[in-house]
Amino acid sequence: MLDVAFQPDRSAAEPIYRQLGSYLRALVAAGRLVPGEKLPASRELALSLGLSRNTVNQAYQSLIDANVVVSHVGQGTFVASRVAASPEAPPAGRAFAWEGLVARRTRALEIPEALLRPAPEPIRFEFRGGRVDPELLPRTALRRSYARAISAQLPDLANPLDPFGWRPLREAIARSLLARGIRCDADDVAITSGAQHALELVARVLIDPGDAVALEQPGYFGASLVFGAARAQPIGIEVDDEGLRTDQLARVLNRRRVKLVYTTPSAQSPTGVALSDARRSALLELADAHQIPVLEDDYDSEFRYEDPPRPALKTRDPAGQVIYVGTFSKALFPGLRLGYVVAARPLLTRLALARFRGDFGSDALAQAALAQLIESGALERHVRGLRRHYAARRDAMLEALAAHMPEGTRFRPPQGGHAVWVELPADVDSDAFFESMFAAGIAAARGDFAYLDGRGRGCLPLAFVNHPPERIARGIAEIGAIAKRHRTRRKSA
Amino acid sequence: MLDVAFQPDRSAAEPIYRQLGSYLRALVAAGRLVPGEKLPASRELALSLGLSRNTVNQAYQSLIDANVVVSHVGQGTFVASRVAASPEAPPAGRAFAWEGLVARRTRALEIPEALLRPAPEPIRFEFRGGRVDPELLPRTALRRSYARAISAQLPDLANPLDPFGWRPLREAIARSLLARGIRCDADDVAITSGAQHALELVARVLIDPGDAVALEQPGYFGASLVFGAARAQPIGIEVDDEGLRTDQLARVLNRRRVKLVYTTPSAQSPTGVALSDARRSALLELADAHQIPVLEDDYDSEFRYEDPPRPALKTRDPAGQVIYVGTFSKALFPGLRLGYVVAARPLLTRLALARFRGDFGSDALAQAALAQLIESGALERHVRGLRRHYAARRDAMLEALAAHMPEGTRFRPPQGGHAVWVELPADVDSDAFFESMFAAGIAAARGDFAYLDGRGRGCLPLAFVNHPPERIARGIAEIGAIAKRHRTRRKSA
Repeated sequence: MLDVAFQPDRSAAEPIYRQLGSYLRALVAAGRLVPGEKLPASRELALSLGLSRNTVNQAYQSLIDANVVVSHVGQGTFVASRVAASPEAPPAGRAFAWEGLVARRTRALEIPEALLRPAPEPIRFEFRGGRVDPELLPRTALRRSYARAISAQLPDLANPLDPFGWRPLREAIARSLLARGIRCDADDVAITSGAQHALELVARVLIDPGDAVALEQPGYFGASLVFGAARAQPIGIEVDDEGLRTDQLARVLNRRRVKLVYTTPSAQSPTGVALSDARRSALLELADAHQIPVLEDDYDSEFRYEDPPRPALKTRDPAGQVIYVGTFSKALFPGLRLGYVVAARPLLTRLALARFRGDFGSDALAQAALAQLIESGALERHVRGLRRHYAARRDAMLEALAAHMPEGTRFRPPQGGHAVWVELPADVDSDAFFESMFAAGIAAARGDFAYLDGRGRGCLPLAFVNHPPERIARGIAEIGAIAKRHRTRRKSA
Repeated sequence: MLDVAFQPDRSAAEPIYRQLGSYLRALVAAGRLVPGEKLPASRELALSLGLSRNTVNQAYQSLIDANVVVSHVGQGTFVASRVAASPEAPPAGRAFAWEGLVARRTRALEIPEALLRPAPEPIRFEFRGGRVDPELLPRTALRRSYARAISAQLPDLANPLDPFGWRPLREAIARSLLARGIRCDADDVAITSGAQHALELVARVLIDPGDAVALEQPGYFGASLVFGAARAQPIGIEVDDEGLRTDQLARVLNRRRVKLVYTTPSAQSPTGVALSDARRSALLELADAHQIPVLEDDYDSEFRYEDPPRPALKTRDPAGQVIYVGTFSKALFPGLRLGYVVAARPLLTRLALARFRGDFGSDALAQAALAQLIESGALERHVRGLRRHYAARRDAMLEALAAHMPEGTRFRPPQGGHAVWVELPADVDSDAFFESMFAAGIAAARGDFAYLDGRGRGCLPLAFVNHPPERIARGIAEIGAIAKRHRTRRKSA
C-alpha cells in the first residue's frame, strides 16, 4: 500500500482536504502514484493519517472532479489512466522549431531582455517612472467601490459589454473631462486597457509599415515600442524648454509625408516641460495645413506644479483631428490598466472594433469600481492629496539635486508630470556611474531608453513620486556621491 | 448676480458639495457662466442656498482643482478663461477626413454594425453563447478575494508587473492544469486578457498577411475575427460527430503550406462535439509530419456531460508544438477578461513581449483575486456547482427540443461546452423565423456567424447555460412554435 507521508498544516487557511488533495496530486505528478494504481480506501487512509473520513472523501472527490483519479463503484478509487500522458521533457533534438515560423512583421522586433529580467533586489530607492507609491493608494475607497461593483453591478457586468466600454464609466469620464476643457459625451469616449493600449490601437488602425510618425526626443519609450512594433518609421523631433520644437516639425513636414504626430503637451514625457501656447498654436496650424492627425497623450495631466494648466490641444480641435488619450495609471495605479481615447466618431468606431477583435474589452469590475470612484468624488479627493504630496516631493528632489549633484549637472524644474530629467556633467563616466548606482540598490532608468538614436546615456530621468521627501533627499545624496566618484576629470584649481 | 437654482438632494450618496460643484460645472458647460465671470462670494451663496459656508467652499475648491474656476486672493473666484475654448461642433465641411488615413491592413476590415448595436430590449430569453447566468455568480467569494487583494496584495500589484503576468497566478494556473493532464510550471504560462486576447497574440506573432490558417467549420467566430484581422487566409475544415475532420485536413496539408491549425477539441465551438481519440492522434501526427503548430483552445474544458474528459492535446506534445489556451470566462464570467497561454518558451516569450508592447499587462487586482479563488478552492467548488446546473440545463434543453421543435429538426447532445447546435428543417423559412424570434424578445445567434462561407443560415446555436431548466423549456417551446409557423411546406397527410 501507498506510503502516505502527508502532514496536515492545521494553521493554514487552506482546508485540510485541499491540502491532502494537493499532496496526492503531487504524488501523481511525481510519478509516485501511477495511472491505474488504486488509492487506499478512504477509511484506511483516514485512520492512518488521523483525519476524519469525511476529509479524505472530500479530498478524493476533488481529485475525481479534477480527473486526476476515477472512482469505480464497489472497486475503489484509481489514478486516472489518461492524465499521465505527458512525458517529462522533449527528447533532445525534438523541440519544435518556432523561430522559423515567427511572422515577418514580428521577427525583426528585438526581444528586450531587460524587460524580462526582474529588477535587482532589494531596491533601496525607486526612482523609475511610470510607478506610484503604494503607501499613497486609496485602499479604503477601492475596497468600497469594488465591493459595491460586485454586490450591485455584477449582473450587468458579467457578460460581454459594449465594444466602446461600460457606458456609465464613459459617461463619468466625459463629465470629468470638462476639467480639461474638453466637451464631449459618452459616445465620444472608448475605454482602453491603459494609455499604452490606446496608442497601440491607434497604431493598429492608422499605421502601415513604413509610415512616418513624428515622436518627441527625448520621448515616451512606450510610444516607440508601439510604433516600432507597427513598423512605422519614427522621426524624432527635439524637445526644448517650451516642449516639442514645432520649427523642426515644420521642416520635416515640408520635406515629407508624415502620418501622425505623437505628443505629450501637458507634461512632456520624460522632461516634464509643458508645451507653450505659441507652440500649441503652431502645432495645430501645421497639423491642419498638412492634414495630419495629432495624438495627444495627456497621461499626467492631473499633476502640475507651477502655472495653471493649459487646456488640452483637444479643446482647440474643431475638425476632430486630435486623438486625445488619458489614463488612470497615474491618478490611481498602473496595475489598474484603464485608460481611454476621445476621438472623432469615424475613427473611434474603428478603434473600438480593433479593440473588440483583440480582446473583447477591459476588465468589467475595474470599470465599475472606477466609475464609482469618479462619481463619488473619491478619485478627485485622492488626486488632490497626491498633488500636495507630489509638489512636496518634487521640491525635495530639486533641492537635493541642487545640493548633492556634481557641478555641471543640468536639470530644470518640471512643470508637470512625475520626474526630473537630469543631465550628468560630461566628465562623469556614465557607464560606471549607472553600474555603481544599480549595485547600490538604486533603481533608475538610463536616459537612452527615451531616445531613438542611442543618445541620452549620460541622462537620468528621476521620478519623484515613489518616496516621501526625506527619503528622496537621502537617495539623491547617494546618487550625487556616486556621480562625484565617477568623474573622470577633476576640477582644476 | 448669478441666479442659482440649485436644490441639494440630501438623500443622495453624493455629498452636497459635490452636487453643487457638478451643478456649477453644468452652468459653465451650458455657457450660463462664462469665462471671466465672477462667482458669488461663498458666504453669500451659502446664505442664499441654506448651506453651510464650508460646503460652498468645498465645492469651489473642487472647481479650482478641476481648473473650472480660478481664485484670485482678495478678488474672488472666477470662471477660468481657458476652459471654454472648445467650439460647439465643427463647422460643416471641416470635419477631418479620417477614412483616407486608415491603414491598408485595417481598411479592408468590415465594420460589423451588429457588434455596435445593443441587443433589442427587453430580452425575454437569452440563448446567445459566450455568456454566463448572473444568478450563479459566486459573489461572496469574489467580494472576499477582491477585498483581500486590495488589503494585502495591492502594494505588490500596483506597479508594473512581469510581462508574463502575476507570478502567483501563473503558479496557481500551472498547478490546476494538472487536472487537464498538463505538466508545466509558472514559467510555461503567460496571462492574457481572455482567450480571445491569446488568439490575437498568437496571430500577431505567427501570422503574416496571406498565411493559411485551418479553422473548424462551423467554428468559433472569435477565431475568424482574429485571423481575419491578421489578413490570414482562412481554410475551413469540416466538423462531424467526431470533431475536426482530419481526413480533410490531411488533403489540405498535402496540397499547400498551412501556418497554423486552430481547434477546440474538448467541446468543439459551437457544436459541443469532443474530438475523438483517433482524430486526436491523426491531428498530432499530421501536425508533426508537416511541422505545423496546433492552437488548442480549451475554452470550455470544465464542462462535459458524458464520457470522462479526454486529456488536452497539449499532454501529447513532447516537442512543444501545441499552443494551449485557457480562459476563466466560462468558470467565472467573461467580464473578468483573464485567460492564459501555455506554450514552448521561445514562443511564449514572444507572446508575452507582444502583449507587453500592446497594453503592458492585465488588470492586477483581477489577477490577484483569481489566484486567491483558485488557491482557496472556491473556484473549484463553484465550477462543481456550475457543472450540476449545466448538466440539468443541457438535459432540459435537449428534452424541450425533442418535444417542441418541428419534425426534421436535427441536433445532437453536446458532450461538453455550453450550447446545442440545432439545424432547422429545410422547409423552415429561416429569415422569417429569426425575425419573428428576435421580435419576440428571444436572443439567439444565427448559425452563419460560425461559417466562413455564408452557410448555416438555417442553424441555431442555443446556449443552455443562461437560464434555469424551466425557463429553458418555456423558451424552447416558443422557439418551436415560431419555427412551426414558418414552415413553407405543410406535411402531407
